[in-house]
Amino acid sequence: MALKSWLSISPKSHFSLANIPFGIISHAKVSKPHPAIAIGDYALDLQVFAAHDGFSALSTIQPHQHVFSSPTLNAFATLGKPIHAAVRKYIQSIFLDSTPFPQVLKDNKELQQQALIPLKEVKTHLPMQIGDYTDFYAGINHAFNVGVLFRGADNALQPNYKHIPVGYHGRASSIVVSGTPIRRPNGQILDNPAAAKKVPVFSQCKKLDIELELGAFLCKSNEMGQNVPLSEAEDYIFGIVLLNDWSARDIQAWEYVPLGPFNGKNFGSTISPWVVLTDALEPFRSKGLDNDEKVLPYLDEGNAKNFYDISLEVDLKTSSGKSSTISKVKGNNLLFSFPQMLAHHSIGGCPMNTGDFLGSGTISGKEVSARGSLLEQNENGKKSINVEGEERKFLKDGDSINIRGVCGTEDGGLVGFGDCEGTILPAIELKF
Amino acid sequence: MALKSWLSISPKSHFSLANIPFGIISHAKVSKPHPAIAIGDYALDLQVFAAHDGFSALSTIQPHQHVFSSPTLNAFATLGKPIHAAVRKYIQSIFLDSTPFPQVLKDNKELQQQALIPLKEVKTHLPMQIGDYTDFYAGINHAFNVGVLFRGADNALQPNYKHIPVGYHGRASSIVVSGTPIRRPNGQILDNPAAAKKVPVFSQCKKLDIELELGAFLCKSNEMGQNVPLSEAEDYIFGIVLLNDWSARDIQAWEYVPLGPFNGKNFGSTISPWVVLTDALEPFRSKGLDNDEKVLPYLDEGNAKNFYDISLEVDLKTSSGKSSTISKVKGNNLLFSFPQMLAHHSIGGCPMNTGDFLGSGTISGKEVSARGSLLEQNENGKKSINVEGEERKFLKDGDSINIRGVCGTEDGGLVGFGDCEGTILPAIELKF
Repeated sequence: MALKSWLSISPKSHFSLANIPFGIISHAKVSKPHPAIAIGDYALDLQVFAAHDGFSALSTIQPHQHVFSSPTLNAFATLGKPIHAAVRKYIQSIFLDSTPFPQVLKDNKELQQQALIPLKEVKTHLPMQIGDYTDFYAGINHAFNVGVLFRGADNALQPNYKHIPVGYHGRASSIVVSGTPIRRPNGQILDNPAAAKKVPVFSQCKKLDIELELGAFLCKSNEMGQNVPLSEAEDYIFGIVLLNDWSARDIQAWEYVPLGPFNGKNFGSTISPWVVLTDALEPFRSKGLDNDEKVLPYLDEGNAKNFYDISLEVDLKTSSGKSSTISKVKGNNLLFSFPQMLAHHSIGGCPMNTGDFLGSGTISGKEVSARGSLLEQNENGKKSINVEGEERKFLKDGDSINIRGVCGTEDGGLVGFGDCEGTILPAIELKF
Repeated sequence: MALKSWLSISPKSHFSLANIPFGIISHAKVSKPHPAIAIGDYALDLQVFAAHDGFSALSTIQPHQHVFSSPTLNAFATLGKPIHAAVRKYIQSIFLDSTPFPQVLKDNKELQQQALIPLKEVKTHLPMQIGDYTDFYAGINHAFNVGVLFRGADNALQPNYKHIPVGYHGRASSIVVSGTPIRRPNGQILDNPAAAKKVPVFSQCKKLDIELELGAFLCKSNEMGQNVPLSEAEDYIFGIVLLNDWSARDIQAWEYVPLGPFNGKNFGSTISPWVVLTDALEPFRSKGLDNDEKVLPYLDEGNAKNFYDISLEVDLKTSSGKSSTISKVKGNNLLFSFPQMLAHHSIGGCPMNTGDFLGSGTISGKEVSARGSLLEQNENGKKSINVEGEERKFLKDGDSINIRGVCGTEDGGLVGFGDCEGTILPAIELKF
């Protein structure tokens, strides 16, 4: 049964009492971005809450309350997971119908009015200052599907794929929060990729795609030259968000050999605004996909359940208002976990820092309806997706993509991620 | 003829009056990192200089003097190139023998004692807080040499190479300043790359290499979704440093298909501490290498001289003290310029920011003695380099690499970059 709150929380809310995700907001009364948690249809403004002695009954956070006036969650994240857990538990406790601290908020109408802001009156911001962004490729069904399209089934996966959580350094500066429009990129593409002499043309992207991913924010640093062992990796993972790694397939196809994706990816990546702490996801731990290769010891997590049973969905809404859920897939369709990714990333001594962001890679199931990119769904342009009678292969201007993800049941209280939405703006007229 | 200073400056100094490069220092009297310029054998401490009214005769900097107490050059860089030029010119003028402002420093022994710190008493720090790091691949001789080793001369360069300034997103967190030791990385390698069934082993890197590059720091941002036209790109380039992009060739070889270099590169990249402003390099502008393909209009710089005639050298010193200059090459051995790289990077709307760092790619000439990586010099392990009787293919523990770069003549005053040095530490014993 769900924990019962004195605040009215719809059983359909992603932000049940079992969740308490952290984000950065601004609103009419406090225009500078600052931390909050989401609960039901409200944000609890943590800057206002802290300033009004809301944390008076939680001694561990007393010396650190300045973190709730910071424009990002980095300062809070750096405090470490025991403090994140204590703050989350405390906030849960003050919203309990049977709260041991009724004077803090339940019986304090004035603070409720000041600190509980309806989500629809709140602007969300990027939750963390991102140092480095790394995008992995651990969705083996996606890697296989795409490999089949370009190299055939026998050579679909590279020889390294099952041994290494393959990843590449992404572009941190173009990560934006849900609701930020995405401009269709211009760039170099091949009009005729099959031609013997390959000469690019300048064009707006004609194959604008999505990638359904999960993302992890880090909350701890390792010293350069030292590795993060798998056994300690969870201490570094602050929480999880949804990620749409927008992809310009035609730009990417021409540019990516030999150094990897570049302008095909760096025009924008959208994340959901509320960071769901790993504590909140604890009840939904699960195994990932089986690996039929034996990984090296530094990546061997044995029988650990280091993945999450998250129900993910992708909605496509056209500019004319037609809408369809184009993909449904579970978040554990991954060959490598975030702890494995982190252990691999740091094995050579790469310094990881609070605010660093790891993408999982595109999450696809085996069925067509569970594919996490349009490229897979349309088999590289061969098939159309039906959106209430409108046909789509890749995205058109004005199309909007929303990724949603949720764990648990309405009975027990949903633990969800809210929206991860972006709408495509037309390409700009170029200045040379 | 060199500008004549009242300060004794050796004609061999990289930091003549014609240079005035900016960096971040700390020293016994001011332990918090803060800005300085290098001149002769001294750093002029700009925090101390500003606090003692050193800038009293330069009105344009008056409202901005807080930038000289900042721990990085980002705040100064953001002021824009007209202000960088004014500050550099002003500092030049106060060091002139015929300075119009003798009371500021020439005749002010007390401020000389406080603000002029011998370079050997100064610790240098990373000059900028780096947002995103992008490493390009514009050294066509290097790309060709490496391509020949792995694919033969006919397929050495990819079809996109002459059309695109090929690049990839690098790891910002592992960029360190000259003098920082570099730990040999551990990772996955193939003992037998030719075997049909490829199974990696865990090993320390056995093919530890260097890459001789130039790097450019940015000082301006573009709005996400907008491009930086080639005609405006120079406004975004703050200055140039030397870059050694250390590379673990065996780790890289196994991991890099299809998404590019990752752990083979992210364990460390070394830069020289003093940012040489583009103004100081103006007299040394030159053309780069000819491109026999016609680039698209957004990359067409016509007859502009957007490269620099910098004499680059790489010294290898072994742990037993043997030393040899293993490469000498000119810095204009590049197919694409930094303005072209920036125009390409942003053509799809990627947001560039002050503090972003662009690497040129490895700079090699056509001769063996001008090759900027050991991989090229040893032809992938076939030949040895002679270092005063010691043989080297790749780097051993305790080896030290120093890159130096300089423009101009002793008569006219050298414009140099100082040292870009790193020494290899043995790999760590792994924690799992």
